[in-house]
Amino acid sequence: MLVIDDIVDRGLTRRGRTCWYLSSNTSSKDPNAKVGNMAIFDACMLENMIYVILKKYFSRESYYVDLIHLYSEVCLKTYLGQMLDVLTEPTVGSLDGFTIENYNKIVEYKTSYLVFYLPIMAPMTLVGKGGTLDQSTKDLIVSMGTYFQIRDDYEDCYLDPKYNGKIGRDVEDNKCSWLIVQAVKRANQEQLEILKNNYGKDEPYRVALVKELYNQLQLENVFKEYEIEFLSLTRPKIENSTTIPPSVLLSILQIE
Amino acid sequence: MLVIDDIVDRGLTRRGRTCWYLSSNTSSKDPNAKVGNMAIFDACMLENMIYVILKKYFSRESYYVDLIHLYSEVCLKTYLGQMLDVLTEPTVGSLDGFTIENYNKIVEYKTSYLVFYLPIMAPMTLVGKGGTLDQSTKDLIVSMGTYFQIRDDYEDCYLDPKYNGKIGRDVEDNKCSWLIVQAVKRANQEQLEILKNNYGKDEPYRVALVKELYNQLQLENVFKEYEIEFLSLTRPKIENSTTIPPSVLLSILQIE
Repeated sequence: MLVIDDIVDRGLTRRGRTCWYLSSNTSSKDPNAKVGNMAIFDACMLENMIYVILKKYFSRESYYVDLIHLYSEVCLKTYLGQMLDVLTEPTVGSLDGFTIENYNKIVEYKTSYLVFYLPIMAPMTLVGKGGTLDQSTKDLIVSMGTYFQIRDDYEDCYLDPKYNGKIGRDVEDNKCSWLIVQAVKRANQEQLEILKNNYGKDEPYRVALVKELYNQLQLENVFKEYEIEFLSLTRPKIENSTTIPPSVLLSILQIE
Repeated sequence: MLVIDDIVDRGLTRRGRTCWYLSSNTSSKDPNAKVGNMAIFDACMLENMIYVILKKYFSRESYYVDLIHLYSEVCLKTYLGQMLDVLTEPTVGSLDGFTIENYNKIVEYKTSYLVFYLPIMAPMTLVGKGGTLDQSTKDLIVSMGTYFQIRDDYEDCYLDPKYNGKIGRDVEDNKCSWLIVQAVKRANQEQLEILKNNYGKDEPYRVALVKELYNQLQLENVFKEYEIEFLSLTRPKIENSTTIPPSVLLSILQIE
């Protein structure tokens, strides 16, 4: 799904390496040939391989059908999130749609199910506890996914690419990033005009103007305050979790 | 899968209508906007919907897992065939790879499983006979798929688009069509040069030169002879089929 996301989003790098569709096509005689749209077939095959692997290792288990349902549910929800991400993207020059409500819905579907719900539910299903999650635990998992994506958006702009292996392009790509949502919420009329004129465009000086405005609006601090508040609210919920061991949730969140 | 195939193959029409990725994007304010690469998400969602539908209608049935296996096996094999189709495509100007061995392998994977094996096996699975097909019946199904694809290749060139709803582009697109395989097999040195210089290129006069050569080599007759031979060999096999009713096989093949 990330292979396809990179094609649709025109991504350049993923986890420090050139996106697959931009990689050299070594089966071609042309040394400049790229994998290109063939990457779509590769991505669909990778997704189908999930079911080959599940069949090979789990088809004799009583929870086999539950595992298939889990993976296909998460695939579908993630595609819905990726579509929502592209469809809610406003026309360049408009800031409509950069709202926290839109943001939360996109992130729930695009990130939370794939990055948090699946890695928690897969082992739960393996021990026959797939159906035991209550609504408050599900809400906790979705909120963890939202935090993870907000941190990712923050790092897209503020972290050196050598740490996250990704050249941030949220500004150029007109993405509904957490930072633009916060900027639109805080900007005065004059600052809104700067965002309208420069967000979602490729020229480096326009990107620099947007990031300069992020600094004026002190979004680095806004993020840090959000992070402190999120962790202080979430840590007790995690520690009180009876269905999923707290240590599992803390390690997935990459906090101690 | 056909939605994706059209993107990778740069198709123009499918069943008489503009390919989905080239259709107007009605959710965009730009009247010229196309669905474009968003069609990849649509295609992946459509494929995932198979499992949503199977779950909704069949999850309480004893053959449910067999149905899931059938669909995921056919999806995977079809993607393999589509990849093989693109990967074995020779560089324009070379005719290497346009062999009947390559052709048969591509068609088995690209067409036979999706168009013949699946529509036969799905109802067989529903009546609990999914596992009863012997090798000779499977071979018969694959050979029916090959015939179907050869007829499709023939019609790509010789049938008026108003009958099959598709503007044939096999020559322009450098496809491993049954016609080019037959042409390469029959052409003399001089004719091979004409094919090398003109096959797989977009200019209408080059396409016309290739089709003129097809006529010189009487490929229309070659197809008709193949068809007569195929049907005379296959009809007795169909009539002797004990696992699948002959009327089913004949109707799928669209012959009486």
